[in-house]
Amino acid sequence: MRAYDIIYKKREGQKLTKDELEFLIKGYVEGDIPDYQMSAWAMAVYFQGMDAEETADLTMLMAESGDMIDLSPIKGIKVDKHSTGGVGDTTTLVLAPLAASAGIPVAKMSGRGLGHTGGTIDKLESIPNFNTSLSRDKFFDNVNQHGVSVMGQTGNLTPADKKLYALRDVTATVESIPLIASSIMSKKLAGGADAIVLDVKTGNGAFMKDFDSAKKLAEAMVAIGKNLGRNIAAYITDMNQPLGNAVGNALEVKEAIQTLKGQGPEDLTELCVELGAAMLQLAGEFEDLEKGKEVLRENLKNGKALAKFAEMIRAQGGNAEVVEDLSLLPTAADTVEVKAEKAGYISEIKALDVGLAAMILGAGRENKESKIDLAVGLELKKKKADRVEVGDALALLHYNESKNLEEAKAKLLSAFTITEAKTKKNKLLYEIIK
Amino acid sequence: MRAYDIIYKKREGQKLTKDELEFLIKGYVEGDIPDYQMSAWAMAVYFQGMDAEETADLTMLMAESGDMIDLSPIKGIKVDKHSTGGVGDTTTLVLAPLAASAGIPVAKMSGRGLGHTGGTIDKLESIPNFNTSLSRDKFFDNVNQHGVSVMGQTGNLTPADKKLYALRDVTATVESIPLIASSIMSKKLAGGADAIVLDVKTGNGAFMKDFDSAKKLAEAMVAIGKNLGRNIAAYITDMNQPLGNAVGNALEVKEAIQTLKGQGPEDLTELCVELGAAMLQLAGEFEDLEKGKEVLRENLKNGKALAKFAEMIRAQGGNAEVVEDLSLLPTAADTVEVKAEKAGYISEIKALDVGLAAMILGAGRENKESKIDLAVGLELKKKKADRVEVGDALALLHYNESKNLEEAKAKLLSAFTITEAKTKKNKLLYEIIK
Repeated sequence: MRAYDIIYKKREGQKLTKDELEFLIKGYVEGDIPDYQMSAWAMAVYFQGMDAEETADLTMLMAESGDMIDLSPIKGIKVDKHSTGGVGDTTTLVLAPLAASAGIPVAKMSGRGLGHTGGTIDKLESIPNFNTSLSRDKFFDNVNQHGVSVMGQTGNLTPADKKLYALRDVTATVESIPLIASSIMSKKLAGGADAIVLDVKTGNGAFMKDFDSAKKLAEAMVAIGKNLGRNIAAYITDMNQPLGNAVGNALEVKEAIQTLKGQGPEDLTELCVELGAAMLQLAGEFEDLEKGKEVLRENLKNGKALAKFAEMIRAQGGNAEVVEDLSLLPTAADTVEVKAEKAGYISEIKALDVGLAAMILGAGRENKESKIDLAVGLELKKKKADRVEVGDALALLHYNESKNLEEAKAKLLSAFTITEAKTKKNKLLYEIIK
Repeated sequence: MRAYDIIYKKREGQKLTKDELEFLIKGYVEGDIPDYQMSAWAMAVYFQGMDAEETADLTMLMAESGDMIDLSPIKGIKVDKHSTGGVGDTTTLVLAPLAASAGIPVAKMSGRGLGHTGGTIDKLESIPNFNTSLSRDKFFDNVNQHGVSVMGQTGNLTPADKKLYALRDVTATVESIPLIASSIMSKKLAGGADAIVLDVKTGNGAFMKDFDSAKKLAEAMVAIGKNLGRNIAAYITDMNQPLGNAVGNALEVKEAIQTLKGQGPEDLTELCVELGAAMLQLAGEFEDLEKGKEVLRENLKNGKALAKFAEMIRAQGGNAEVVEDLSLLPTAADTVEVKAEKAGYISEIKALDVGLAAMILGAGRENKESKIDLAVGLELKKKKADRVEVGDALALLHYNESKNLEEAKAKLLSAFTITEAKTKKNKLLYEIIK
């Protein structure tokens, strides 16, 4: 077998066999197949696509290129949730204890990641003494005893995907649905979940800007899951403005606590209830989605979800008093309002610009070496379709250093479009693909 | 400017500017742009193509990446001829003295090349003492004094094309019309010709198997020439069987001499007359192609063409007596006939298999280190549409070593298809693109 022939075959639009994909992926990881052949292949895939079987084969090969986590020491059906990424996405912080409060095991391994804010692990580390570096046994014990644990990812997961993604990133071959789908799904499969709920974001702040692309990606990932015998559902949800109001690490933890108390922003609350019900359904807890949502809403009101979060924090060595006293979380030295310069209705909030404003304040990492300021960020005071008068606060910036403050203000202001005509909110959930 | 953006732009089917192509080609030659970006770009070009202007820009940039030969010390309009390659192509050996005999300067730099036989330079070196390593001044003097000279290519020509072609060769990105056209034309432009006659072969023994691809390639190359202000014509000619009868180095020199005496195979003679008339036309010698052909046919009969070849050989130190005494050329120790095993009409001669048979006997190079046996090769005794009886000789193999003889025989035999029904010859010249 030769890499040349595999590239040629894909260039000609033919289907690759599992043996051919294995030759390619193994050869690439082991260094026998050079980058220049792999990038030519990726470009051929960009143009010719891959069918469901090829995509599933590629996914499994990338998953098996590194450690495969075995979650079987945890009792019950383990459902993982994955979001394709957006701005102000506090979902995991709410969803993990919320789903656990309804009786399903939640064993979540998360990353730090590059972006406008840190990843889930960075956010959790704003809770005093919270330990995200658990041994795998301790992690399993915590889930078995408390129903939920969130830890940092360890081990050598999907090295083939890491190497291929880094190459695609510099060769304009990222935007291929089968390659994106197999990249995401390979990580989920290596993570050991029995079932998977995917939150596929669409809109100006998402990787997939338009609904059609998001739907294609959702369908491709669901097809991979089914091909590989996993229960799976994909929710296509709105990212035309940041989710919730908070963008920043400790600020999002505060917002998550508010949400777990039943006092969170409507969009974040609703999305967590929707995705939570999907997790309950796939875990076999509630076949009926409406019934699941009812239980989850109840748990947000009756304190069970918040209590589960406090239990998780305690089990991982953190100060659980934060759920009652938000001032125990990192707090920025100063705040300043960004005010509307014209009156009208908000027709657009460019989520990426809001994210960049938070990043300018120090909430995110530009590269792996950047240090995050957990306290800083921003809270949106107005969302899409809201009425504003001149001088109304659009957002409250939380900052420690004033040197980039004007830049952050300008960026935040530029994210808003205000029109005279009334505008409508976007739908939150567009479609469910199963 | 970033290579990423240029790949992306081409991937999206957009036209690249000359600046962008220059950034890419210069960066690649200088090592700033890695192979893996260049191969992804080449695959994007494979799918999205390039328009006439982009292709011309790329051609010029590759030509200018190395030495540009200045033929201005040679008086008159210098017309180069280029063939896209086939089996048994003795054209240059005939055409150079033939065109010179009609009064136009022929300054030909040729290569050795990998293939079933050697290149023109290898073939000429089968003439005792013939010197193909001339200084550039001596080369110019020879053309000015004798009207013709053929020497080995020197200098650092089109390093960008060399590097890119080697990459395309291993990444399944060779078969792109604009990339093939710019590769060929960059070498012609660097070679300094004022005008160019292209012999684009089509058929089972050619790079372009079907007429439509050959025509597209011819049109792309003519467009490049016109875009860059060169007089140019492309002849689409048949390569569904070897051209002429001889395949082998000294054997082809013998065939060329026979042809220059007016006693050559019909197809080779005709093609040389056609291409020669095109050269005379582009050089401004004979506007009327028919008039040019008449003069050339006359020169094959009256000895002028042969005398010009002898003059060229003498001027380059070679033994010009070879034109009268073919036994002065290298001769193989033995010959053996390959005989027809059934009677009928020849419906197909797979040119590549004939070439491989010659190579098995030692006539060609498998890699740069291979040593050529100038004496060996084969002569076809039958061509397409000929009638054969059982036991008739299809070809005569010339060999020095018998160890691969059976393999060569079998390969030669497998090249022939014999049918009961009568068959027709192919046309020699399909179309002229100007």
